[in-house]
Amino acid sequence: MISKILVANRGEIAVRVMRACRELGINTVAVYSEADKDAFFTCYADEAFLLGPAPATLSYLNMDKIIEIAKASGAEAIHPGYGFLSENPAFSRACEKAGIVFIGPPASVLELTGNKITAREEAVKAGVPVIPGTGECPADFSVLQDELGDIGYPLIVKPAGGGGGIGMVIARNDNDLQRALSSSPEMAKKYFGVSSVYIEKYIEKPRHIEFQILADTKGNVVHLGERECSIQRFHSKVIEEAPSTALSVELREQMGTAAVNLARSIGYVGAGTIEFIFSEGRYYFLEVNARIQVEHAVTEMTTGIDLVKEQINIATGLDLSVKQEDIKHYGWAIECRVNAEDPLRNFMPSPGKISGYRSPGGVGIRVDSGVHQGYDIPDCYHPMISKLVAWGIDRNEAIKRMRRALSEYIIVGVDTNLTLHKAIMENPRFVSGDLDTDFIAREVSLLADMQKVKERDKPAQIRMSRIFEELS
Amino acid sequence: MISKILVANRGEIAVRVMRACRELGINTVAVYSEADKDAFFTCYADEAFLLGPAPATLSYLNMDKIIEIAKASGAEAIHPGYGFLSENPAFSRACEKAGIVFIGPPASVLELTGNKITAREEAVKAGVPVIPGTGECPADFSVLQDELGDIGYPLIVKPAGGGGGIGMVIARNDNDLQRALSSSPEMAKKYFGVSSVYIEKYIEKPRHIEFQILADTKGNVVHLGERECSIQRFHSKVIEEAPSTALSVELREQMGTAAVNLARSIGYVGAGTIEFIFSEGRYYFLEVNARIQVEHAVTEMTTGIDLVKEQINIATGLDLSVKQEDIKHYGWAIECRVNAEDPLRNFMPSPGKISGYRSPGGVGIRVDSGVHQGYDIPDCYHPMISKLVAWGIDRNEAIKRMRRALSEYIIVGVDTNLTLHKAIMENPRFVSGDLDTDFIAREVSLLADMQKVKERDKPAQIRMSRIFEELS
Repeated sequence: MISKILVANRGEIAVRVMRACRELGINTVAVYSEADKDAFFTCYADEAFLLGPAPATLSYLNMDKIIEIAKASGAEAIHPGYGFLSENPAFSRACEKAGIVFIGPPASVLELTGNKITAREEAVKAGVPVIPGTGECPADFSVLQDELGDIGYPLIVKPAGGGGGIGMVIARNDNDLQRALSSSPEMAKKYFGVSSVYIEKYIEKPRHIEFQILADTKGNVVHLGERECSIQRFHSKVIEEAPSTALSVELREQMGTAAVNLARSIGYVGAGTIEFIFSEGRYYFLEVNARIQVEHAVTEMTTGIDLVKEQINIATGLDLSVKQEDIKHYGWAIECRVNAEDPLRNFMPSPGKISGYRSPGGVGIRVDSGVHQGYDIPDCYHPMISKLVAWGIDRNEAIKRMRRALSEYIIVGVDTNLTLHKAIMENPRFVSGDLDTDFIAREVSLLADMQKVKERDKPAQIRMSRIFEELS
Repeated sequence: MISKILVANRGEIAVRVMRACRELGINTVAVYSEADKDAFFTCYADEAFLLGPAPATLSYLNMDKIIEIAKASGAEAIHPGYGFLSENPAFSRACEKAGIVFIGPPASVLELTGNKITAREEAVKAGVPVIPGTGECPADFSVLQDELGDIGYPLIVKPAGGGGGIGMVIARNDNDLQRALSSSPEMAKKYFGVSSVYIEKYIEKPRHIEFQILADTKGNVVHLGERECSIQRFHSKVIEEAPSTALSVELREQMGTAAVNLARSIGYVGAGTIEFIFSEGRYYFLEVNARIQVEHAVTEMTTGIDLVKEQINIATGLDLSVKQEDIKHYGWAIECRVNAEDPLRNFMPSPGKISGYRSPGGVGIRVDSGVHQGYDIPDCYHPMISKLVAWGIDRNEAIKRMRRALSEYIIVGVDTNLTLHKAIMENPRFVSGDLDTDFIAREVSLLADMQKVKERDKPAQIRMSRIFEELS
């Protein structure tokens, strides 16, 4: 049994993990950077220890210090959240060495999923469709051409070691490809420490659809259905929903089974996500995210299953709480990532003090956040304010409820991307469910729509902010 | 179609109703007393009009003024919330006369349900079990004794016109009864304007179990399952949950059918509640609440159906959105009514300024409130801060989640009853599901438990309040 968990993360996900711990009767230890000393998660934890200055290498990435604090505080396990050390095999191994349970997959799985080429190979082995492409790129261009065979342009060159769009180059002809091959490996080396790159057919305007899986140490593996995460900006998710408007019952079953098969075949343990590219009715393996995802809440809202509690129970050695046939899906959930940034000024981050704050509530609304009124959003981290999730009996109700929630969200003192979310929730193409990963880039009216929404909602904003008048 | 609704209420229920309106694309009109001019609901509405000074007779009970504002603002309908004018047949009739839709049952139904004797008679007609008892009490004691027959003591004398425990007297012998009959009618006359009283067998330690019903204008009537509301203080509900630990599938079906039959037989229209007394496996009709209830959220959390939207759709003349066989129940929901009052000082109200406020959030948590940080809770109304609802996959998870939510609720500046809720959520009898309406009065350890909880949680309270340090 685990009686104390150190949460090696900050902000909303630190709070999220601590909530699960508290519901399980497990004590929590926060570790925080100097910038986070007055953050809610620091005060929410049963104990809190300073890691060091704000730069992540001196705090949230400082493995030795984190393990040292875990030991000193008597924590038997570490939950890494997402980002930071969550998919770092060295950290998983260091925990193991120190006799501390790492709440996530074993180091060997993290190594495998962290390398996109080996992950792709594992998908092939497990019989999961992959995008036509290569293994590690050979140095010789004519050998490469042979390997590519009749795949044909457009192609995309991807680093083996990383994600987030960094180092990816689209090639539409031989010239593009040769140029890409001369720049990508260097970029890959610089950002991910590994110069290996591989090539896939470039699929235009795909959807991003991912499946949540859970695997325990006894070999039980289930999937909890899909999440559609096609609304992205610069390869970063902005709005997610569950289920997806694109999947039939049969496709959901097929893709879910593929996800489970892959997880089983690589010996996956814990909560994880199998990401797919979806285009013209076909799906292709993209990558494995070997951790809890930012967007896990939409799955929780539609299945009733607490994913973080499952992670902890799995790490404790317990069986999954559910079998595949017990997992039911009800309603529709949409998540908006609310950030302190100005979408009308190229998403410029807007850190600073939240002088007035009232988050949405009531029927069907879930808010996960690490902020509060009076909180000073530091400029050294991603400026997320909250994850706002709306559940409805169907997609129509979820969208209308999200619009309502966005309309009542009061955040005074910093710019936010609420106008972007409002504009998307009112966008006819979004409402019709016709999504793809280029949605934000291609909807040329979005900027004008945001301007209009901002003007239209200004009187209401002013009216609502009146409740904080005394403070200003 | 209705395009604008005036909400004739205040606080959390005004916000609740406006949220439903906004999700339906309906504009909202707030009416407010001078004490509520800076309240959130006043600022949240699309338009807001001053009613008058704080005393309810000069504001929230001022029918003429409310109808006048509705007409002037172009509102086609009025939603009365709960309390105030919500069950007032004269108001329903006045709305009708003014050509305004009253969102609630017709005046004739309100007259019938407002008189406990006629409501009881209707239950008998509909074949719903009632507690052995009388109709309106005859003046002659020997006639009364004949009517009582072999019912036997203890008995309870109840005013026909009212609820909330006022004017009710328990009689354990002839002397008690004669004394009650000489005082109750006067009390009844004073508080409810009607001196009629009736007598029922007094059931010791019953449970209070109620059924939510919905009835449209086409004669469709459904029930949405039960709510257990046995945790009360002075006949006022403190904690509610859905479903009830007391009901078998068969009993739920029987009681639900009884509720639907009664609603159908009295021509009910709208959302309503059929309340039952439950004891030793048997149920007895108690009364009809002809409005939305404070505790409606636990039904919404376990069915996914938005009851206020249903009310509005019914008033618009639409059919119910669901048939009985489509209504599914999942999980368990518990509601705690969070008030600004000190349970350790005989629940003394604690109005005043909320200087720091952070409400619980995350998985499974719903908060309905009308407050915000910086809000000054007026001393002229019931000092409710919020309705905190926790949903779990089963009762165990709902209780643990509620404990977690209570532990993270930060309310600085006023006393609250959070310690009472914490103590009850940890009480072994509550956890075992062994509830009755005397629970709070009979659990003699509660006071000491609250003291202990308060001491135990003090360090965490101080730690968490630190996030507001700059403000104080």
